[in-house]
Amino acid sequence: MSLGAGALTLLPVTGIGEVRRGDRLGALVARAVALHDGDVVVVTQKAVSKAEGRVVPIDESDPDARLALVAAESVRLLRRRGDLVIAETRHGFVCANAGVDLSNVEAGHAVLLPLDPDRSARRIRAEIRRASGAEVAVIVSDTFGRPWRRGLTDVAIGCAGIAAVVDLRGTPDAYGRELRATEVCVADELAGAAELVMGKAAGVPAAVVRGVDPSLLRPGSVRAEVVRSASEDLFR
Amino acid sequence: MSLGAGALTLLPVTGIGEVRRGDRLGALVARAVALHDGDVVVVTQKAVSKAEGRVVPIDESDPDARLALVAAESVRLLRRRGDLVIAETRHGFVCANAGVDLSNVEAGHAVLLPLDPDRSARRIRAEIRRASGAEVAVIVSDTFGRPWRRGLTDVAIGCAGIAAVVDLRGTPDAYGRELRATEVCVADELAGAAELVMGKAAGVPAAVVRGVDPSLLRPGSVRAEVVRSASEDLFR
Repeated sequence: MSLGAGALTLLPVTGIGEVRRGDRLGALVARAVALHDGDVVVVTQKAVSKAEGRVVPIDESDPDARLALVAAESVRLLRRRGDLVIAETRHGFVCANAGVDLSNVEAGHAVLLPLDPDRSARRIRAEIRRASGAEVAVIVSDTFGRPWRRGLTDVAIGCAGIAAVVDLRGTPDAYGRELRATEVCVADELAGAAELVMGKAAGVPAAVVRGVDPSLLRPGSVRAEVVRSASEDLFR
Repeated sequence: MSLGAGALTLLPVTGIGEVRRGDRLGALVARAVALHDGDVVVVTQKAVSKAEGRVVPIDESDPDARLALVAAESVRLLRRRGDLVIAETRHGFVCANAGVDLSNVEAGHAVLLPLDPDRSARRIRAEIRRASGAEVAVIVSDTFGRPWRRGLTDVAIGCAGIAAVVDLRGTPDAYGRELRATEVCVADELAGAAELVMGKAAGVPAAVVRGVDPSLLRPGSVRAEVVRSASEDLFR
């Protein structure tokens, strides 16, 4: 019987309300919840983009309007089937509609991805430090599909103060053999875990993960660690 | 300030030790940790496969031996680059080396995927019920790569007593607009979350997720809900 050591807790951050352009999201989170050093704060891309003013008007009655927006946000279109476009964004993310999203935003508007989600995470982290004194890590999450598995999961599109990928290569396994190629994308696992307490329709823009292994809390970047270049990609 | 409601807790299950062929994994988990009704128990594929005897001898000095095993476990080879083969297993999973794994097993042996991981999950669930009386859900997890993102994450390959994919289509978003195509793969998010407390080299074969939304706790199947058929796949 052993419990306790190594436990993680996930908490939804409620009471933030609607996020508006110019809001300091880090300050809003710090006001809504008592943060501790070492907490990982996961904030949704939707909230980050709204705070950063990445919302554009769109004529929803024009079937080409969305596709034009998607094309403007993309560097490469990978596949198209009906309404669905799989595109590579300028950040290197491969996702549906290049992240252009018409849900959970005022009618007649679309939300675009942050220009630099790692930078967004760093800014929110600094805002939290200023507002609360707490040294937290920050992950910006978004909801992506996967080619061979149904259903969406939340993944990290930006991070600060936490490793995105942890390289366990060279760590002996339980048999003393050296583990090969075990690089774990902890940022994506944390983003997905946070989704479980945030939900999609509930208007909860952030979650706190408490108890994360302190060895993960170092400078990190989704763009540098997670984005796979087209040259090393077998499926682009 | 609001915390508490909707919180999730993740606990590693330690003290199980090495799993051997014929072990009743559910009974081992139930003995190692006090389980509550509504808990989700995540067990690793490695432990499940060992308990089910899905371990085969392999001549590690023969470079073709592993490839022959991979081919035997596959219905389709998608890509090959050097040592890495991306294959579709008979279950419909697309993953590296069709799940054939030489880590965390005795030298000279390889671990194969369970023949029917949903059935494995159902059996473990029944074993837990018998051993403890607790009505839990069970997810069998494995570590998969992703085509466009570096780093591996744990995903669900089998489940019992919990939805694999939750369909939020038709649920109004925070603006009252109907959400479209928001099917969340909660089983994968739970598997990834569990990885965060299990680690790769630590020999922890299970984790408990406590506080999962009770509406998710219904009959589920990874094969039926998550596996995407080749015909609806844009990348196979």
